[in-house]
This record gives sequence, C-alpha cells and structure tokens, in this order.
Amino acid sequence: VPVVTGPAPAAPPAIADAVRVAIEAFLHEQAGVLAEVAPDAPGLAEELRVLSSGGKHLRPAFCHQGWLGAGGDPELLGSDGSPTPIVRAAAALDLLHASALVHDDLMDDSATRRGRPSAHVAYADRHRELGFSGDGTRFGAGAAILLGDLAQAWADEMLRRCGLPDRRVLAGLRCFDLMRTEVMSGQYLDLLAQADPATTLEQAMVVLRFKSGRYSVMRPLELGGVLAGAEPALLAAYREIGELVGEAFQLRDDLLGVFGDPAATGKPAGDDLREGKRTVLLARTYAGADDADRAVLDVWLGNPALSDEGAAAVRGVMSRTGAVADVEQMIAVRLDRARALVADAPLADETVRDSLTELAVAAADRAA
Amino acid sequence: VPVVTGPAPAAPPAIADAVRVAIEAFLHEQAGVLAEVAPDAPGLAEELRVLSSGGKHLRPAFCHQGWLGAGGDPELLGSDGSPTPIVRAAAALDLLHASALVHDDLMDDSATRRGRPSAHVAYADRHRELGFSGDGTRFGAGAAILLGDLAQAWADEMLRRCGLPDRRVLAGLRCFDLMRTEVMSGQYLDLLAQADPATTLEQAMVVLRFKSGRYSVMRPLELGGVLAGAEPALLAAYREIGELVGEAFQLRDDLLGVFGDPAATGKPAGDDLREGKRTVLLARTYAGADDADRAVLDVWLGNPALSDEGAAAVRGVMSRTGAVADVEQMIAVRLDRARALVADAPLADETVRDSLTELAVAAADRAA
Repeated sequence: VPVVTGPAPAAPPAIADAVRVAIEAFLHEQAGVLAEVAPDAPGLAEELRVLSSGGKHLRPAFCHQGWLGAGGDPELLGSDGSPTPIVRAAAALDLLHASALVHDDLMDDSATRRGRPSAHVAYADRHRELGFSGDGTRFGAGAAILLGDLAQAWADEMLRRCGLPDRRVLAGLRCFDLMRTEVMSGQYLDLLAQADPATTLEQAMVVLRFKSGRYSVMRPLELGGVLAGAEPALLAAYREIGELVGEAFQLRDDLLGVFGDPAATGKPAGDDLREGKRTVLLARTYAGADDADRAVLDVWLGNPALSDEGAAAVRGVMSRTGAVADVEQMIAVRLDRARALVADAPLADETVRDSLTELAVAAADRAA
Repeated sequence: VPVVTGPAPAAPPAIADAVRVAIEAFLHEQAGVLAEVAPDAPGLAEELRVLSSGGKHLRPAFCHQGWLGAGGDPELLGSDGSPTPIVRAAAALDLLHASALVHDDLMDDSATRRGRPSAHVAYADRHRELGFSGDGTRFGAGAAILLGDLAQAWADEMLRRCGLPDRRVLAGLRCFDLMRTEVMSGQYLDLLAQADPATTLEQAMVVLRFKSGRYSVMRPLELGGVLAGAEPALLAAYREIGELVGEAFQLRDDLLGVFGDPAATGKPAGDDLREGKRTVLLARTYAGADDADRAVLDVWLGNPALSDEGAAAVRGVMSRTGAVADVEQMIAVRLDRARALVADAPLADETVRDSLTELAVAAADRAA
C-alpha cells in the first residue's frame, strides 16, 4: 500500500467506507452465483474486491455530491447497517472503473496497479505457481480480459439493482450509457494518439476530456443528480462544473505522471515518460520545444531504458518550455471557473457548495 | 462468406433479416454519438455492424421463439418499417455475442472469424498499412479489447432501450445479468480447463453448459418469455428445453470443430485440434483411449504443426474409441427429450410447437 504524503485522498472517508461495504456485499452475492458454476470461479469476485477497495473512490464521491446537491437523502447506511441505494449506485462506478483498469493494464502491459501486481500479471504468476500447462502469459491475458468483462457486466447490474425507484434508475442508466460510450471511444482515440507521434494539443485535449474528465467527474456528478431527480438547470450546471473539474483532475494526473512522488502515486517515477503517453502536458511541451529540446524528448519518450538522468532531462525541458507552468495555469483557471459555478448553482442543499468545492480542489490539487 | 452446404442456417430468414435491420439502426445511432467524440471513432460501430451481420442470429431466433410461445405479438416490423421492440431486444443478444467473439479471438489468437480477419488482426493490419508508430500487434490487441468492451456496453443499452414496457425490460435484464455472469465465468473455467490436460468429462460438461448451452439457447429462450410476461410454468419449461437444446447445440459444435467441412464452418479444418480445445468430445475420447491412442492424441492436440495426416489420425481415434458415436447419441437423447418437453409445454401459441422444434433441430443438427 503506497504511503500518501500529500493532501487527503479525494473521497471523504465516510462515503469511501460506505462504498467499500456496498461493493463487498455485492461481490459476496455474485461469488455465490459463481460458486454454482464451479468451485474455482469465486476467486474472480475476490480479485475485484481487492482491486476496488484499493482506490480513491473519487467517482462514487462525485456521484454522491451530485445526489446531495439535488436534495437527496444524506444517509449512507440504512437502519440495518447496509448501504443506502445511492451508495450502491455510486459504488457501481468503482466496479466499472475496476473493469477499465484491468483492461488498461493489459493493453499497456503495466506490471503493477495500486502497489500490487496487475491482474494479467497476477494470473500469469498463478499459472506458473500451479504448474499449469501452456503459455502463462496468454493465460494471464485471457483471465484479465474475462475479469474486466465481468466487472463491466456487474457494474451495470449493481447500478440497475441499487434499490432506487425504477424511473430514476432508468434515467440514471442513460447517463451511464453515455459515460461508457465516451470512455471507451476516448480510450480508442488515446490508442490512436499513442500510435501517432504528431498528436496535437487539440487532439490530446479531446482524449483528456472523453477518456478521463467526463468519465471521472462530469458523468458521475450528473448521475448523482439524475438519480435524485434534479431539475434540468442543476444538471446543466453539474455538466459544466464537472467538465472543468474533470479536465483539471486529468491535467493534474499528467503532472503527477512525470513529477509525482512514487511513494505517493504508487507508480514508478517517470512511468508516463517510459510509456510515451501522449498527454496534454507532452503536447504542450512539444509545441514550445526548440530543436535541442525535441532531440531530448525524442530520445527518451517511450524508451523502456529511460534512466533517472533521462527523466530529469525531460522534466527540465517540460519546465523550460513553460509547459509545466501552463498546465498548472490551465488547472487553476478551470478550478476558479468551477468554484464560481458551484457558488451560483441552483443547489437544493447549501452545505454542498462547500463539500463539492472541497472535493473538486482535492481532485485537482492532489499529490497521488 | 463461407458457403453453407448443410441444412439452412439456424435462424429463419425473416427474424434474421429483421435483426440485421435493428442492429444497423442501433449502430448508426451510436456512430452519431461517436462522431461527436472524434472523426475516427465511428469506424468502431462499422466494425461491429459487419461482424454482427455475418452470424447465424441463433440467439435472437431462440429469444423470438420464447416471445411467440408466451403469446407475444408476432410482428417483426412496425407500420413504419422499423423493427418491433422484441426484435430490438433479441438483436441485443447478437451484440453481446459480437463482444464475446472479439475477445475470444484475441484470447485464442484466432486469425479469422466468419471468413474475415478477426478484429485484433484487422486492427493490427490497419496499423501497419497506415504506417503508425509503435507495435502493431499491441495496437490490434488494444483496439479489440476496447471494441469488445463497447459491444458489451451497447448490448445492454440496446436491450434496455428496446421499447417494451419498463417492468418487462427490467425483468428481462435480470435474465441478461445471469446470462452474462454464466458465460463469462464459463469462459474462465474453459481457460482453466485448457491449462489442465487432465480435464474430466464432468468438468468439460460444466464448461459446455455455462459457456455455451445456457448462453446460446437457454437464456435467450427464457429472455423472450420473460419479455412477453410468460407464466412461471412456461419459463420453467423453457429453461429445461433450453438446457437440453443448448447442450445438443454445443455437442454438435464439438463435432463440427473436428469433422466439419471448412467450406461450411468458415474455420480451418481441425482448428479445435490445433488449439487443443478441451471439449466434451475430447474428454470422452481420452476416457476410452488405450496407450497407443493416447500417444496419438498427445502428439497432435494443441500442436500448431498439426498436419492433415495428424488430424486424420486423431479423428480415427475419436471414432474408434466410440467417442463420436457417444456424442451423437448424447445429442439425439437431448433432442428427443426436448421434443417431448416442447410437445407438453404450456405454450400460448400452438404454431410455436413446430417452429421451436424446427429451430432446435436446426441448432443441433447443423453443418456449420
């Protein structure tokens, strides 16, 4: 478990704890279904439980804020101690995210996730440990594909069966539909961008918006509002706020991917550089780079042999070209605008003005 | 397009045509959503359209029979020529199947599907043709993972938005939930079975039931009934009939995977042998094999260098051990029982007794 040295994680502890309880209960139920198929199968549910419990629960937290701001009941646990329907609905976003992470790690061939071996690596290791026949790497890839597929199916099931009235749930699922289509097509664009070294700043912004910003903040916030039956004016405000905060969140992620403390982020230093990720930060760096700078970038970006010195040289170029300052400025501008919109939004609960602003700041100014 | 030399494809042409129209309309709508993300993205919808239109539409056909047998309206097209809600619901099963095929082909590294390059191969080819940078094989794998994810999300969306009353749709989605969990955990068990050469007949039957039988026949038939508001007694009959026909369907598939005519199946001859698929047919062969037989099997199964002579030798062992006759017998027993159950089922429409029996026979006695 990585030590967090910066500000508190994005989701306030109360909702994060309730979300974990909801996910455990849902996966326990699914493990029962799997046990009817075969004794080996419930391990899939356990794998997802461990993966989901390790996250920041950012998406459920924004969903919960959207619910509260629309006048939704603030209770997290019912009288029997079980999570309330909105908590279950919000927790479904973490299952969808688990699906995306498992598939992402396989696509990028990332060895670790949240300080543990990523799913395809863990299954490949198991294949070797148990002395299975055939190719362990292929077994690991296959298991990770299926695990991610299952998590996606279960996210939909968990949201649909959250316990809110059918009408509200069906409206929420339309938001969920858009969210899935946006994130998956955004990931595909990211794949195209990785394959094209000439990715422009504009293209990188489109990827950032669909793959991350809308998926991580805008749609979760909107979903919470829809589930609480929010008026169109509030939903429009949520989308505008969420778009800005979502972009700020991912711009911060771009910076952390290069300048973050590995002890805090749980990822090796310079991981984004080694992968050659075509981020907005990188596109902005190229835009301001001279020939000497470009030579440094071209040598080290996407180079598996990236050294500490190489990473330091790239960081130097990113700072010198003004890209780092620009991205910090982009974050600040978005946060300021979002703050102003939150101050004016037609919220049903005044306390949400502070709590939503705090969550937005935590998402955009985090250290991990 | 493979030439079908045996009996007619499983789905009667009328429902198959209507299903294709429904999928085209749905994917056209989704392509519009993708176009808002980026100009490159709608190609994903087109890829799924081509893939879905090439199939036998077996699952939608069973779903439609389940609907008709419960007294559902037989119209396939509305007065404006667009597919009726039940056709849209049934067609969603083809999108889910497209998702499974894309991910399956990647897991098995199958080069072709329905006579065309499989998705991961097609995307890898495109990467090379367009002169993209980076690893084309990895690009193809990533694109196939995302395409399958998108197809799964869209299958759920298409079923939920089919246009039937909310109450019915929500009940149908519970059936869809079970179907997804069963097929994905069944695929995982199959992966485990592939990694364990000592797979027993019993284990192979569990994989066959969950990965294929329930997914291809039982749940689609039940779903059609649920969507039409069928009584519990009819749903119970559907499940029993569907379990039998689903097993017969997959047992036939086992035989076709070894003895099928490549011109009819669209797959290279002996593909299942080359992959070393742990089918019920194979488990039954091992159970009846002597040392000499076992030596033949061990040399050729899962051997990428499988020759025509090797394939013929394995076929010889399968026949000599009685495995082929046994599997044919298993199919016949299941079809007979299913026929008797259809004759007694509390169907709301008498004509379905014949049409459902015909569809069951077509599924179990097909040549492709």
